[in-house]
Amino acid sequence: MTEFTPPDPAWETKVRDSFERQGFMRYLHARLTRVEPGLVEIELPFRAELAQQHGYFHAGATSSIADTAGGYAGYSLFPPNSSVLTVEFKINLIAPAKGERLRALAYVLKPGRTLAICDLKVFAASGEREVLCATGLQTLICLNAKADD
Amino acid sequence: MTEFTPPDPAWETKVRDSFERQGFMRYLHARLTRVEPGLVEIELPFRAELAQQHGYFHAGATSSIADTAGGYAGYSLFPPNSSVLTVEFKINLIAPAKGERLRALAYVLKPGRTLAICDLKVFAASGEREVLCATGLQTLICLNAKADD
Amino acid sequence: MTEFTPPDPAWETKVRDSFERQGFMRYLHARLTRVEPGLVEIELPFRAELAQQHGYFHAGATSSIADTAGGYAGYSLFPPNSSVLTVEFKINLIAPAKGERLRALAYVLKPGRTLAICDLKVFAASGEREVLCATGLQTLICLNAKADD
Amino acid sequence: MTEFTPPDPAWETKVRDSFERQGFMRYLHARLTRVEPGLVEIELPFRAELAQQHGYFHAGATSSIADTAGGYAGYSLFPPNSSVLTVEFKINLIAPAKGERLRALAYVLKPGRTLAICDLKVFAASGEREVLCATGLQTLICLNAKADD
Repeated sequence: MTEFTPPDPAWETKVRDSFERQGFMRYLHARLTRVEPGLVEIELPFRAELAQQHGYFHAGATSSIADTAGGYAGYSLFPPNSSVLTVEFKINLIAPAKGERLRALAYVLKPGRTLAICDLKVFAASGEREVLCATGLQTLICLNAKADD
Repeated sequence: MTEFTPPDPAWETKVRDSFERQGFMRYLHARLTRVEPGLVEIELPFRAELAQQHGYFHAGATSSIADTAGGYAGYSLFPPNSSVLTVEFKINLIAPAKGERLRALAYVLKPGRTLAICDLKVFAASGEREVLCATGLQTLICLNAKADD
Repeated sequence: MTEFTPPDPAWETKVRDSFERQGFMRYLHARLTRVEPGLVEIELPFRAELAQQHGYFHAGATSSIADTAGGYAGYSLFPPNSSVLTVEFKINLIAPAKGERLRALAYVLKPGRTLAICDLKVFAASGEREVLCATGLQTLICLNAKADD
Repeated sequence: MTEFTPPDPAWETKVRDSFERQGFMRYLHARLTRVEPGLVEIELPFRAELAQQHGYFHAGATSSIADTAGGYAGYSLFPPNSSVLTVEFKINLIAPAKGERLRALAYVLKPGRTLAICDLKVFAASGEREVLCATGLQTLICLNAKADD
């Protein structure tokens, strides 16, 4: 799943720089923990500020890191001087998002000149134990001649 | 779209109480601005803490209030002593989420004993002007004999 | 929902001609019953050949006419010398698709130069009575300089 | 992905029998080519009757076998005296569905007492060559005390 060759030699730097500019990811205390061509991982430690009414991670928090991981997985394969937008995503919340942290792992299923399709997975982790808590699919669009910053 | 008769006479109180217990909605500064049988509206004022890399609302913030509004729209029609979980949702981000605030409006398309299906819309607003920036569909499940708190 | 001005003066002819070329719609006995700018309706009479194991319309038949109606709703707004592809769709099957016929109604929620987003609805009808049996969202892509035939 | 133990000893027979009762699958000439606990494969040979306007498999045909494969993957894990309904599915059409046949492969990502979530993949094949042409996610519901026939 990481056998892609990014057309932009600066692929890793541009992903990391763009992530740093996301006020929302910083506000959630989300961390970029893995950046490969077409694959991005984001971790989110639990805090009460991220909870829904039962004290677990809110589906919105789960979705936010899944969407962001997918966006950057796609962006890593986009050409220089382009930016990325999420067209749509769908996510199934298949187990309670409860634990010490969430780990979103997204990879590009299908790269393309205009669109990219990503697989999204989110795991709820406590210590060494991880449970798949969400799975999704995402469509991204590449905006050419429109640098990300 | 609001001609439903909630089976729980405490429908409004239970929705408002549950919303108050969501640490995530409070952390985002989201406000419950409308609660009717099968219809819920949530507003979210813009702050840099909610932005993606271009300075607009992050798709995760948009999705978070859409999912929450849908969840409570469904929950308003659930019987006493039950709680609500999002099974899945899909959202299309159709215009830049830029403006002074977002307004998520969700209503139940199809209530049911076990599942409820909601329509989700999010508008980006500045002054009097509003633009539809996201549209989605959501599936909820009703957990019986399991009060929400 | 039909206030669009198609950029292609031949919008109606091209939609009808393309529909006629779909072997699958003919095989299902589906009929194009309404073509407006950004809105298309398709009807499908019940036959045992379209049924699932309980004798109702198969979800695949429901989805097929919903997808096709959406595709042509978008295509009606595309420029000359272009064609349309479905990027993705999501559909919720909210009531049994049982009756004498299905009626799929699709309209463009958001037209665009590259993508169009459609709302999909399918009704199960018997005599004068209609029940909403499916609701969906669809993303289309416009392929320029690539005529449909 | 096939390490499930079906609670119904008749799981294989009931899947095959139910598939045989689907008029629509027969009408499409679809064949059940693999049935395992939580995993089902369906093949569909190309015919002009299954084509869209460009002569490839119609997205509706692709979706129909994907939905059916997922439904039976879930059904194989359901208890005796129950039946299955598709709640919703989402599918991304990521490459042209062109070739001699389609092969839909679905497996259960998450079984459950009430709901099951499936991963859907469709491959377009010609001779030995296969291309992933569609990927999807599906939510199923188990109807208890309601045998399938």
